[in-house]
Parts: sequence; structure tokens; C-alpha cells
Amino acid sequence: MLIRRREIDFLLKEYLQLDELFKTARFANHDAETVAGLLDTAYAIAENEFLPFAAKADQQEPEFVDGRVRLIDETATAVKAYSDAGFIAAAFDEDNGGMQFPWTVVQAAQAVFASANVGFYGYGMLTVGAANLLNAFGSSELKARFMPAMLEGRFFGTMCLTEPQAGSSLADIRTSAEPLQDGSYSIRGTKMWISGGDHELGENIVHMVLAKIPGGPPGVKGISLFLVPRKQVDDFGFCGEGNNIVLAGLNHKMGWRGTVNTLLNFGEGGECVGYLVGEPHRGLGYMFQMMNEARVSVGMSAAALGYSGYMHSLEYARSRPQGRPLTSRDPAQVQVPISQHPDVARLLLAQKAYTEGGLALTLYCARLLDDLKLTDDEQEKQSLESTLGLLTPIAKSWPSEYCLEANKHAIQVLGGYGYSRDYPVERLYRDNRLNPIHEGTHGIQGLDLLGRKVFLDKGIGLGQLLRKVREDCARVSVTPQLAGYAQLLAKATEDMIRVSSMLLADNDKGESERALANATLYLDSMGHLLIGWTWLRLARTALTALESETGQDEGFYQGKLKACHYFCTYELPRVSSNARILAERDRLFTEMRDEWY
Amino acid sequence: MLIRRREIDFLLKEYLQLDELFKTARFANHDAETVAGLLDTAYAIAENEFLPFAAKADQQEPEFVDGRVRLIDETATAVKAYSDAGFIAAAFDEDNGGMQFPWTVVQAAQAVFASANVGFYGYGMLTVGAANLLNAFGSSELKARFMPAMLEGRFFGTMCLTEPQAGSSLADIRTSAEPLQDGSYSIRGTKMWISGGDHELGENIVHMVLAKIPGGPPGVKGISLFLVPRKQVDDFGFCGEGNNIVLAGLNHKMGWRGTVNTLLNFGEGGECVGYLVGEPHRGLGYMFQMMNEARVSVGMSAAALGYSGYMHSLEYARSRPQGRPLTSRDPAQVQVPISQHPDVARLLLAQKAYTEGGLALTLYCARLLDDLKLTDDEQEKQSLESTLGLLTPIAKSWPSEYCLEANKHAIQVLGGYGYSRDYPVERLYRDNRLNPIHEGTHGIQGLDLLGRKVFLDKGIGLGQLLRKVREDCARVSVTPQLAGYAQLLAKATEDMIRVSSMLLADNDKGESERALANATLYLDSMGHLLIGWTWLRLARTALTALESETGQDEGFYQGKLKACHYFCTYELPRVSSNARILAERDRLFTEMRDEWY
Repeated sequence: MLIRRREIDFLLKEYLQLDELFKTARFANHDAETVAGLLDTAYAIAENEFLPFAAKADQQEPEFVDGRVRLIDETATAVKAYSDAGFIAAAFDEDNGGMQFPWTVVQAAQAVFASANVGFYGYGMLTVGAANLLNAFGSSELKARFMPAMLEGRFFGTMCLTEPQAGSSLADIRTSAEPLQDGSYSIRGTKMWISGGDHELGENIVHMVLAKIPGGPPGVKGISLFLVPRKQVDDFGFCGEGNNIVLAGLNHKMGWRGTVNTLLNFGEGGECVGYLVGEPHRGLGYMFQMMNEARVSVGMSAAALGYSGYMHSLEYARSRPQGRPLTSRDPAQVQVPISQHPDVARLLLAQKAYTEGGLALTLYCARLLDDLKLTDDEQEKQSLESTLGLLTPIAKSWPSEYCLEANKHAIQVLGGYGYSRDYPVERLYRDNRLNPIHEGTHGIQGLDLLGRKVFLDKGIGLGQLLRKVREDCARVSVTPQLAGYAQLLAKATEDMIRVSSMLLADNDKGESERALANATLYLDSMGHLLIGWTWLRLARTALTALESETGQDEGFYQGKLKACHYFCTYELPRVSSNARILAERDRLFTEMRDEWY
Repeated sequence: MLIRRREIDFLLKEYLQLDELFKTARFANHDAETVAGLLDTAYAIAENEFLPFAAKADQQEPEFVDGRVRLIDETATAVKAYSDAGFIAAAFDEDNGGMQFPWTVVQAAQAVFASANVGFYGYGMLTVGAANLLNAFGSSELKARFMPAMLEGRFFGTMCLTEPQAGSSLADIRTSAEPLQDGSYSIRGTKMWISGGDHELGENIVHMVLAKIPGGPPGVKGISLFLVPRKQVDDFGFCGEGNNIVLAGLNHKMGWRGTVNTLLNFGEGGECVGYLVGEPHRGLGYMFQMMNEARVSVGMSAAALGYSGYMHSLEYARSRPQGRPLTSRDPAQVQVPISQHPDVARLLLAQKAYTEGGLALTLYCARLLDDLKLTDDEQEKQSLESTLGLLTPIAKSWPSEYCLEANKHAIQVLGGYGYSRDYPVERLYRDNRLNPIHEGTHGIQGLDLLGRKVFLDKGIGLGQLLRKVREDCARVSVTPQLAGYAQLLAKATEDMIRVSSMLLADNDKGESERALANATLYLDSMGHLLIGWTWLRLARTALTALESETGQDEGFYQGKLKACHYFCTYELPRVSSNARILAERDRLFTEMRDEWY
């Protein structure tokens, strides 16, 4: 089931105050109406072209037939409807053939597609990512040749980072790029886990490939970025001969099967031509600069999958009669819907808090990305970049972890039915299990947050962000309905500030290994803290609305307050408990020996 | 991969001191040698007949062909090897044709089978359960007619409780049993989610069916237990005509696919004859009396699946080079195996603590079941029954929850490979997702623990059990290596005692709804506490062994200490945090309204 429209409208208009963006020159062509139009279209396509085929795309996964990928027919129809309606182009500048919508709006629309059918959604999402990279760092000639076709959905995109022997450790990639006489490069190597790596959905596929130019610096400093088309493209943008990229096999995944996943051999059987994007040896840096968008998108899709499961289990819980209240167990009484059992309420509220909170955090990040594009003020820019840098690993990892947990809960609500493939909740659970793995594993996100975003910056950005949290706590503490939650959040914040200082001090003393040994626990704790913050802000927004609302939306806003209550009461205490563990700076994980397992 | 033999030997001999059982009259025919022989056989069959076909049984799930169930051929071979070697009969009395092994030993062997191929394991496990029920409550005539064939593996067994409209609420089953002239009953109704409900593995299938005799009391007090054979059986034990049980369909599950799961219509197309087991209207009570075994077995299988994933991910982590230590990131250096990265160590240690701890707890319960059979002392009997009653919902639910988490971690260690179906860890994760659902959902276990086992007993049994925990803490507190853990456990114990008293007081005041609103959180917390206790005892056992051990087993015992350290440091703090939440007696889950979701 789709993310509710009411949810999206609440987040965009009330929580993220989209109106403010329309006042800027960049988004002056947009208003509530154009946004509503785009969302109407997204819902119509998601409902008609994506959702009905999600189960089929899972059951009939991509096949490798005569060297080509065969997808179910509905994939092409859906992806075409999506790109024809402008969802690849939506956030790009009008000058580049885009629609110049705020990224926040586009992400919200993408979330709707992901909740409908994450497999189909993958093709457009990857193309947006590749086009983003090209747009940011490609030469004008390269952009002119490839971007229009990508934005129109004639050329699709991929990201080719991982190799069979190099996943988290990109320093060890072996794909090589030998300079050719005309300034292009000859690409040779094998790339693994490439989503959308081969298919017949469009005229061409544009691979964004990390490779090493021989003679360059070792490790990550010698990685360059190349645009490598599946078929060669002439100066007029027409596709010609194949470019010697051989589909070596398909990966058969537990879930997310609608997006084909491939093993590709570049330069097998002949020369594979690639074009350098930006400068040599700076490829990984470019990737990282675009990582915010990509990683936040992962978190968004995790929230969308969780939300879909929440909707399914809610529908089931409201309509499934089973048992009676504990206080009146007379079997002659009619049974109650299971939503009335406290433990089912718990499972539903946890899903609500995880998925709505996760979606709110990822869209908040999208809003910061918009703000970043709008500001010319260097200091504000730095502050936004620092906040985004901190939030990105959290927005990627927290929903990946907790919205997977939400999908687990959705199965539980349905009981045996949830475990059967006749209901979609088990599929959503399998789909979502990918999110803690791709675009940097959960463990990598922890190192990114603590090692890069906190330590490298000496904790300055973190201090800024947590001061914002403190200020919100203080502001809300005068509102009686929310004061208790603010107090819980403030305590958790102080605990995380304290432990962050300890870890920073360790790192300053040269004990970085010890300081980073529990980076994942730090990540999870900071994630819980910031989702608590998100819920406090969501609740404040809802409370403001409730003051003037007495109609049918009252239940909607009350629900936000209840979810905030759930999160602060049942989830937030984990932060302080974890902070105490972190404060011990336990050495077990660095001292563990192989013979002890 | 299988549970390590060293693990089983440690648990049986050192932790559970099996030797003591051999001194009793009941087990006088057994000794370390007969046990080793049984385990040797279990490992040989598990290795050769179960493990190699686990993936195939998942890929080629049972099919419904011409009204019959088609399983992969290897199922019959494996199940025959298993029953021929006596694994169905192993724990039954010699008088009944059994081998009179301690249940503890048999459960350990079953865990090995479950770790190898949980789908194949299902058939034997269900038959043991059905035979247990028949043995305990059936008339001697009924036992004589059915038990020998069941113990020999010629007749298989099932448990038929759930109906499409009645899962957790058994009060609402509709299957009826009309008395016939000869004292047997005519069974009519539909049973859902019946594992092993139809197949051609043996000569017959013996269904243990809950049904209502018309005119009986309403609700659970009117439920009776019937033995209903798939084919009629004459007085000599020969199978005759079909008994009008129609296979209405197969359920297609997310995992655990090797065990066929069916929808059965009893009495469709003709009279279906069933035989009353025990007295009328006492069926649910009988089921509950045998529930300890069945529910502990679920926890054991969850631990076994988790253990198997742990072994796979450990093997992968030791052999996969990726990245370098944080302290020497020179890309010219050779890469290290990922087991040396702290976050991978965390994922492995968590798996170790969850799965070895879960296995130890379930085998401890099996040992208590043996003790129960051995004692004639009424007071000791009561005490054992009370402890077992408390431990059963925990032994069922804790491994189901945390060994599923272990399987999630196993996938994470393998990264993208773990998400692909080329590796077994994703299958184990799917298999294990069943365990929190069947044999009473997670939520039902919480109500069982708090509502039945704590409240009905006025907390007396709980007090006994927690005093035992306290005593162990005190005993260990003089051992310097373990004193810190004992202290942490003692604190968690006091916190749970305090909150248990509060909840008991609520219940005494008639506020049972409020007291039970967070029964699941109580269950989880008590589970963590008792796994902490288990780890303290395991560590004490290992430490004792280490005093005399300097050989190759040193690593094994050190590992137990490290896992204890992991659990007490990283997991146990959750208990006190949860206890504080429980103490608030929050009302959200009982006050939640449908329009707020």
C-alpha cells in the first residue's frame, strides 16, 4: 500500500513549510498547486502502474536469456509512465531540461513510488543519481551528449563502484582506465552488484564507473570517475555499436527483485570506451559529494517500505476479529478486531513511529539539500553542509534498521498469514533487508558518522546540531502537553553530548581505534536521539494544527502526539542506556581473537 | 552449517552435568558412551542426509499435484534415516518401544538436525510431539494401535489447533466432533497452517485435533482432543481406507519451506472418524501440559537456525579479506580478514551470545523436564513445574526474537553476498522468521508469562527462580574474573523483582488490563535477564575448565568468557532500562484508538 497522501501533505506543507521555498527565485515558478499536480500524477502512476505489479516482479525475477535481461513486461510500461511524467527530470534545472522542483517534493514523490513497488522505482532512482553526478562534475560537452536522454528516460543510469573483491574497501578496486589518443579511456574490469546494470528498458545505459588510471596514486587517491555507455553514442546523441560491456551474470537476491542486479565485465571482447568525469583521481571525492542524496534516498526507501507494511498490517488489524479484551473473556461475546489488543497496538505504534519518523527525517534532509542550493552565505552554507554531513549516515542507517524492524512487526500482526507469500508483508521485509547493506553498510555509516563527521570536524558541527536539539527542547518545555517529552529528549541529548566529548578526547589522544570500536552503537544511539527530536517537532506541528482543528483531521494530529508519546516513552530511554555503555569504552571488539569464536 | 560438536558436548557434559542423570534408575542403561553414539549418528545423518538438501528443499518447495503433496525425493530418504536410527523413539520409555534417552540428549540431537535442515527436521519433531501427547493422555488401546508405528516412523504426526478464523483465540474453533455409536467421533471442520498435514513419507499420518463436542461448555472449556488418522487403521495396526480428510491447499511460506504446510478439511466427502484422547472437554489442558516440550523445541530450533548462520558468517569473516585496520590504512598493505574489523567482531559476538545462550537455555529447560520425570518428591515436583512454567515462554520467545536477529547479523557480515540466494544465510533468516509466530505468538508468550505464570501463582514461583539467580550472583561474586558480571546481573535482577512486585500489586487491585498492557516488554526483559544468568553460569563452567585446561580447548573456554562479557556489557543494561519503562505502567497501548493510527 502507498504512503498516505495526508502524510505527505502534512510533512511537506506543515512540517517542512514548503511555502517558504516558493518565495525564493529558484522555485518561484512553483507553488502549492504545481506540487499538488506533481503528487497527483505520482499517486496515479504509483497506484496504476507500480503497485499492481510489485508481487509479480518479485515472483518472476529478472532472467538471463540469450545474454540479455528479461524483465516482466509491466516494468517498461511503468518506468516509461514515470519518466514521461517527468519524475527523472523533476528536480533538475530548467536550463538542463528539468522541471526545477524542490528536491524535497521530488523525494516525497519518490517515496510514494518506493512504497508502491521498490523494484520498479529502482530504475528511475538510479538514473537520477547518475544524472546528478554527471550534472555536478561532467564537462558541458559530456552533459550535452548524455543528460537530455537521461532526463527523458531514454538512457538509464547506474553506479558502478563495487567489485567482487572490493566492496566496503574501495581502495582495492582493480578496474583500469587506460588513456586513449582521443582523450577518452579504455575501461577494463569487473563490477559486482550493479543494479540496473543491463536491461532493454531504454535506448542505452549510462554507467558511472570508478576506475584507476595506471600510474596514479595508490588507494582511494587514485580513483577516477568515468561515464561508460553501454552502447556508443555519437555527437548527435544517437546510439551506435555496443561498447563491449558483457553481462556476466545476474545476482539472485532475497528481495528487491524487480530491480535487476548484475555482474558486468567492462572491456571483454573488445575496447570499452569511457569518458573521464571531472579531473583524474578525484572520482571518490565526487561520489562522496553526491553521497548525501544517494544515502538519504536509501533511508527514504527504507521508510517507504516500512510505511507500506504498516498500512497493510493496520488494515489487517482493523478487520481481523480475534479474541476478546482481557477484562471480558466471555466466549459468547463477539470477538474484537485485533487492533484492540494492547500488544497489537504496540506493534502498530512502533511501526508508525519508525516509519513516519524515518520519512520525516529523510525529507528534512531533502529540505536541507534545497536550502543548501539556495544560500549564497558562506557561513550558512558551511553550517548546512555540516548538519547534512552528520544527518546523512543517520538518515541512511536509522530507517534501514528500524523500518526493517517495522516490516518484521507487520508480519507479526498478520501472524501465519504474514508469513505466507499470499500477503505482501513478507516481501516488504525481504525488500527492506537490502537497505542496511547497499550504499555503504551499517558499519560503514557508523565510521562515517563518528570518524569523519564528528572527529575530523572536532565536534563543531555536532555541537551546532545538538544545540538546535536543546533549543527545541527548551522551546517546547513551556507547552504542557509536550514538556515531558522535551525533558526526556533533553536528558538523552545531554548524555550523548557527554559521551561524544569523551570519544573526541580519546581520539585527540591518538586512541582512535578505541574511540571508533563502538561506532555502530554510537550511530544507533544518535539515530534514536534525532528521531526523538524529529518526533518532538512533528508533535509540536500537530499540536499547533490541533488548536484550530476540530474536524476529521483531529484523529490524524492526535496520532502524531501518540506516536511521539510512544517514541519518547518506549524508545528514547535506549539512548541513555547506550550512552552509559559507550562511556565504558569497552575494548572487546578490538581485542577479540579468531580462536575465541 | 551444523552446531559444533564441541558446543553440544560442553553443554551436555560440563554445563548440564549429564553424568548425574546416568546415576538414576531411569537412565541407568545410558552413559557417556551411549550418548556419544547417539550424537555420532545424529551428526552423520545430519551431515549426509539433511544438510546437503536444505537449499534444494527451499528452492523446490512442496507442490500440490493431483490432490497430493509432492516433496523433493531427498525428504523421504532423510526422514527414514532419521527414524530408522531411532530419533523419533529416542526419548520414549523402553516399555513403549523407545530408547529411554534423557530428553536433554534427544533435544541436543534434534538441535543438530534443525541446524542442518529445519524443513526435514519438522517431520520428526511433529511426530515426537503427537506421540508425546498420545503417550501422556491416550488410552492404552489407542496407544497400542498407534504409538509403535509412530515411533518407528511409519506413521507421522501433526498438531491441528488453528482454523482460518481462530488462531490465537482457540476459544473460537468450530471443528466439531459428533459422537458415533461405537464410541468414536465424526470430525468435521477446517484446520489451517497444519505442518506436515499431508505427504507420502510414511504409511499414515496421525492428526492430533482440537474439536468441540456439540453441547459442551462454550469457549476453551469445551475443547476436546482427538486422534484422527489420515487413513483408517484396523485393530492390527494395518492401514485401510482413507478417512475423508481432504487436502484443501498448501500454504506458500517465506521460509521453512521443506516442511509442507497445509489447509485440511476434515469430514469432506464422507465421515471422518476420530478417537477421543483422554476425557471430553479437557483437550486444551492436555495441549498445554505438553506445551512445555513443544514451545521449548521452538526456541531450540530458533537457536539452531541462528547458530547455523553464525557458523556461516564466521567462516566468511575469517576468509574474506577486505580493508585494513583503522590504525594502518596504507593501501599498499595486504588486506585483513573482515573478522578483524571491530564492527564485524560485534556482529559475530552478538550472534555467539544469542545463539549459544539460547541453545543453553533451551537445553537447560530440557534438563528440567528430565528432572521432573525423575522426582517423586511432591515439593520438588511443584518447584520444577513452576520454574519450567516460567522458563517455557522465555525459552520459546527469546531465541525466536534474538536468534532471528543473529540471522540478520549473519547476512550483514556477508554484505551483498549475504543478501543473495547463493549463500545460505538469507534462507536461515527466512526460516527463523516463523519462530516468533507458531506455537503461540510472541505476544501470547508475554501474556502467558506475566498473566498465567506470574500473576496466577502470586509471584511465588518467580520469587523462587529469581532467588536462584541471586544466589548464583552471590556465589560468583567472589570470583574476580566474573564479579563484575555478577554485579550487573544482580542489579538487573533487583530491578525486575521491583517491577514485578508493582505489576503484581496492580493485578491484585483488579487492574489486570493495565498490568498486562506491556506484557511483551516484560517478557523480553525477563528473557534478557535469564540469558544473562545463563551466560554467567556458562562462564563459571568455562572458568572452572580453564583452571585445568591449557591445550587447544583454551580458546573455546575463553570464547565463553568473552561472550559473557559481551552479553553483560552490551545487552544486560537493556533490562534496567526496560524495567524503568515498565514501572511507569504507561497506558498508551490500552487507550489507543483506531482513528489515531
